[in-house]
Amino acid sequence: MSESDSQQGIAVVLPDGSELEVDADATVEDCAYEIGPGLGSDTVAGKLDGDLVAKEEPVYDGAELEIVTDQSDEYLRVMRHSASHCLAQAVERHYDDVDLAIGPPTDEGFYYDFDNLDVDEEDLAVLEDEIEDIIEEDYEIEREDVSIEEAEERLADEPYKLELLEEFADENDHVSFYSQGEWEDLCAGPHVDSTGEIGAVKLLEIAGAYWRGDEDNTMQTRIYGTAFEDESDLEDFLQRKQEAEKRDHRRIGNEMDLFSIQDVTGPGLPLYHPAGKTVLKELEDFVETLNKEAGYDYVETPHVFKTDLWHRSGHYENYQDDMFIFDVGDDEFGLKPMNCPGHAAIFQDHSWSYRDLPIRYAENGKVYRKEQRGELSGLSRVWAFTIDDGHLFVRPDQIKQEVEEIMEMITDVLETFDLEYEMALATRPEKSVGSDEIWERAEEQLESVLEAHGHEYEIEEGDGAFYGPKIDFAFEDAIGRSWDGPTVQLDFNMPERFDLNYVGEDNEEHRPVMIHRALYGSYERFFMMLIEHYEGRFPLWLAPEQVRVLPISDANLGYAYQVANEFDDFRVEVDDRDSTLERKIRAAHDDRVPYQIIVGDNEEEDGNISVRDRFEDQEYDVEIEDFRAHLEAERDEQRTEPDFLQN
Amino acid sequence: MSESDSQQGIAVVLPDGSELEVDADATVEDCAYEIGPGLGSDTVAGKLDGDLVAKEEPVYDGAELEIVTDQSDEYLRVMRHSASHCLAQAVERHYDDVDLAIGPPTDEGFYYDFDNLDVDEEDLAVLEDEIEDIIEEDYEIEREDVSIEEAEERLADEPYKLELLEEFADENDHVSFYSQGEWEDLCAGPHVDSTGEIGAVKLLEIAGAYWRGDEDNTMQTRIYGTAFEDESDLEDFLQRKQEAEKRDHRRIGNEMDLFSIQDVTGPGLPLYHPAGKTVLKELEDFVETLNKEAGYDYVETPHVFKTDLWHRSGHYENYQDDMFIFDVGDDEFGLKPMNCPGHAAIFQDHSWSYRDLPIRYAENGKVYRKEQRGELSGLSRVWAFTIDDGHLFVRPDQIKQEVEEIMEMITDVLETFDLEYEMALATRPEKSVGSDEIWERAEEQLESVLEAHGHEYEIEEGDGAFYGPKIDFAFEDAIGRSWDGPTVQLDFNMPERFDLNYVGEDNEEHRPVMIHRALYGSYERFFMMLIEHYEGRFPLWLAPEQVRVLPISDANLGYAYQVANEFDDFRVEVDDRDSTLERKIRAAHDDRVPYQIIVGDNEEEDGNISVRDRFEDQEYDVEIEDFRAHLEAERDEQRTEPDFLQN
Repeated sequence: MSESDSQQGIAVVLPDGSELEVDADATVEDCAYEIGPGLGSDTVAGKLDGDLVAKEEPVYDGAELEIVTDQSDEYLRVMRHSASHCLAQAVERHYDDVDLAIGPPTDEGFYYDFDNLDVDEEDLAVLEDEIEDIIEEDYEIEREDVSIEEAEERLADEPYKLELLEEFADENDHVSFYSQGEWEDLCAGPHVDSTGEIGAVKLLEIAGAYWRGDEDNTMQTRIYGTAFEDESDLEDFLQRKQEAEKRDHRRIGNEMDLFSIQDVTGPGLPLYHPAGKTVLKELEDFVETLNKEAGYDYVETPHVFKTDLWHRSGHYENYQDDMFIFDVGDDEFGLKPMNCPGHAAIFQDHSWSYRDLPIRYAENGKVYRKEQRGELSGLSRVWAFTIDDGHLFVRPDQIKQEVEEIMEMITDVLETFDLEYEMALATRPEKSVGSDEIWERAEEQLESVLEAHGHEYEIEEGDGAFYGPKIDFAFEDAIGRSWDGPTVQLDFNMPERFDLNYVGEDNEEHRPVMIHRALYGSYERFFMMLIEHYEGRFPLWLAPEQVRVLPISDANLGYAYQVANEFDDFRVEVDDRDSTLERKIRAAHDDRVPYQIIVGDNEEEDGNISVRDRFEDQEYDVEIEDFRAHLEAERDEQRTEPDFLQN
Repeated sequence: MSESDSQQGIAVVLPDGSELEVDADATVEDCAYEIGPGLGSDTVAGKLDGDLVAKEEPVYDGAELEIVTDQSDEYLRVMRHSASHCLAQAVERHYDDVDLAIGPPTDEGFYYDFDNLDVDEEDLAVLEDEIEDIIEEDYEIEREDVSIEEAEERLADEPYKLELLEEFADENDHVSFYSQGEWEDLCAGPHVDSTGEIGAVKLLEIAGAYWRGDEDNTMQTRIYGTAFEDESDLEDFLQRKQEAEKRDHRRIGNEMDLFSIQDVTGPGLPLYHPAGKTVLKELEDFVETLNKEAGYDYVETPHVFKTDLWHRSGHYENYQDDMFIFDVGDDEFGLKPMNCPGHAAIFQDHSWSYRDLPIRYAENGKVYRKEQRGELSGLSRVWAFTIDDGHLFVRPDQIKQEVEEIMEMITDVLETFDLEYEMALATRPEKSVGSDEIWERAEEQLESVLEAHGHEYEIEEGDGAFYGPKIDFAFEDAIGRSWDGPTVQLDFNMPERFDLNYVGEDNEEHRPVMIHRALYGSYERFFMMLIEHYEGRFPLWLAPEQVRVLPISDANLGYAYQVANEFDDFRVEVDDRDSTLERKIRAAHDDRVPYQIIVGDNEEEDGNISVRDRFEDQEYDVEIEDFRAHLEAERDEQRTEPDFLQN
């Protein structure tokens, strides 16, 4: 860089859109001081074009810059990174010859990977105490720029760090080290100023992890932890975590025999057992009813297509790495990652008049996306999942009415499951296809739908897809966790790529707009969320087993079957095991059956039943017909809790 | 071969199971003469271990031999092969420089492939006349054994024949030629004795065909023809053929917009359009009702599995060539060719007591089998098809009862579609797994089910699978064509391979028996058969559009919609096009809608309707309620023809 360049100055863009001119060699911290000395001294780190960086990093011309202080959302992440250093320092104080690998912050805390470390759960308390000492000792966390050569010397005993260093060395002649007390680490930062600034730390779990996530590498020891600004935040987190674990869909799925994912059948490929398929089928039927009312026609498309289709749709170019692609003879085929191109191909196979539109296709379409094997988990991250997909082909003047209808369907679904939701409209990004006219008209229509809907919504300027604006839903489950929800997505691109047409009133060919929508999104993910939301205690209409009849003794078995027969349009079982009533009640409770019918000699004599619900309430002398009528209403109205005894 | 060997004699097995000792160098014809001089002189060809061969072929020790005379089923095939020679001879009489390729008999006739032949449909009549002349000229058809060297000389001008000869030359030092009059061909036979023995011949079609079925080779001209013993048989065939073409499901599928198979989406991978999916869905629902009544539980398994599963099931070893297999990272995955291993994996994931059995899993499971691309055709030969699959895990003592139930379901299905059927029991083959005891017990149970069923059945001795006996159904469609139907298949092997167990009353582990069954078999094939069986005129319950309302003029459009609304639990449309009533009636007829409701001023005034069915009958002054009640009954009773006006 010539002297004149360095004099010339550069400009960064601040969050409010204003430009700040600074010297060409200015750092994040320099910029903060330029804005104001208060902000300068409060600076912990920066965000450069969205990436969290150390305050010592230089800025560059045109960069979007955000200053991170202890008031920022990102502060917790910085602090957790520093906490992971404290963990490594604590480990090295207690264990010799440990090799350090990596120790990043995560969304929920941090971890550090070690090789040659042998610890068990009990050792975590000792390490936690040591971390507390390090925090109390309040070491200054210092950053130092070091040449590659010197870094090599400092890391001579750290084979994994050396491997990382080699990669940095390709593009840099200096690297940064962070030190606290006697301990230091090769690290890009950012960190808080001193260990004393770290609040409450908790070590959570020991796990195995392959170096760099690659199964061919050494298995290392990973210690997970988390950090919060104070004990009370930490306690809240631990409680939420415990609640989430109690509701873990993998455990409940196994207990209720809903599904399995087996080594022999393959990763990320769930098998639905009868109980799980029963719930899925109810979900499918519910959406089918909504679809039929709204005039959707079901179609069925293959799971495998020639890649010609993916070239036409653009998925080959843009999505290929996530697709399962294979050769058959001279042709290439791919499992579908999305259902839309298949539906576009069906639309294209026919000629349409403006009077035929809107055309609405629905399909419970299974799609395949090649997630990293290490990321696969239960039903939440899978290779194969089914979308309750819907694609509409509409005239530009029909967008409003169709989106209105879709919004009603979506809110109907979310309310049925008692899910609170938020909405956002994502508008035109800088790079986009489609004319100004169609974008403006489309956005106007979406806004007027949102206004009419009455529920609050945000506008996310420029966050739409390049091919069209969209409305995103997010909802909250029973323990306050937020989930990405359904979307309604306008698409001006796919109709171009597939050359889709209809003949207008003017007898000319016109391009339809395509609307992508899903009410649940992925069945797998929604099912998983429902299991955790309800802790497996599904509403009557979803419960795999709705009613269980418990004979008090074997003498009542005949009557029990007779009673069960009266409920044969429900999913009813008789507990005919040779067991005590108490144990039968316990089993039905553990199996999360909404209602138990208990029949003994009294009931048999009077021709009635006792009813017990999963809140452990019980009522005697119930007429079979009364309970039947209630059950039918509770099921058909999709009530979320068994309420025969709760009114 | 030493002289003493040739003296020693060999033995062949005759159809009645007896052994016939003959000289070691005896031919098929020699054997026939050995049986009796009458049979000897009647011999046209032979079947050696099931393969049709010339009577001049030598037999071998232990071979199963059948003598083919003009009374045999195979005679027609031999005659058609000779007819294909007459076609080639006729072509060479009329065209110069034609290169001969191959000319085999087929199930329905014969074809001959030619290169450098330019013919059109009109030329076929000339060639047919020439073939008739050749038949009248009654040339003797003579077989000659020729050395490879001499064959090369004779075929010097026939590049394709030379290519075939080269292959024969690898394993033989002689080949056979057949000659008739001035014409001869390299051919293994068999043929009839003279061209005069060929009955009635008809040339059917000209098509393109790649040499050896390989797209990289030359496209040749294929002429299709057929031959029968007399004109009347030929006429019958041509009439059946015309009837079949009128019913061709590919044409009707396109006319009714039921499905498409597109270049861009790939071969053998049908896309179901709304109308087609509607019919499929009705078929799925029908079988779901039967399954639920019979206590089946639906499950859902992935379409892709790690090949570990296929190794365990044995499909990898035995079925691999027909599977779509691909790598993901270091692992191998395969699209499922069958659903049974997935269901076995679900059963295996649980522990079972004898009281839990039978366990019955059902799934509309899509499977993938890599048929040759050239063989793919409409819905009858596809790569991906869905089976209405069911797998039962039963105790050996439960076989009878479960198979009885399945037989009832199958006959229920076949009778619903008015399909006449035949049944056969295939028993234990020589090579088989499973103890004598289980085979005997199983076969006894199957026989007693068949006896109790009352319908005639055949026993096909030794035709069962190696893993268990089975009952096969075959049915006949409306134009007398026979189709492979549903099967019930016992399986003693899969439970071994998956180590499936249940705990018996004796507290010991026992092996369940697995039963495979399908009611339709492949939905694709069954759907295709139904389209042709009904000529697209589906019964009311299956029809994609059940009722169409035709307003006589635009003035009646409001009333038309009002009437349509009265039928909103049916698939009803209003023909709101600006058109004459006559044209609307014609369109509804062409679209194969079972019922038309016609409404004009009279109907509107009286608040009733006119009803017209697809037999073109019409009734006036019909009360809406009366027609509704009839429609509901016709639909719910799954009647095969619209019968409101036919009683």
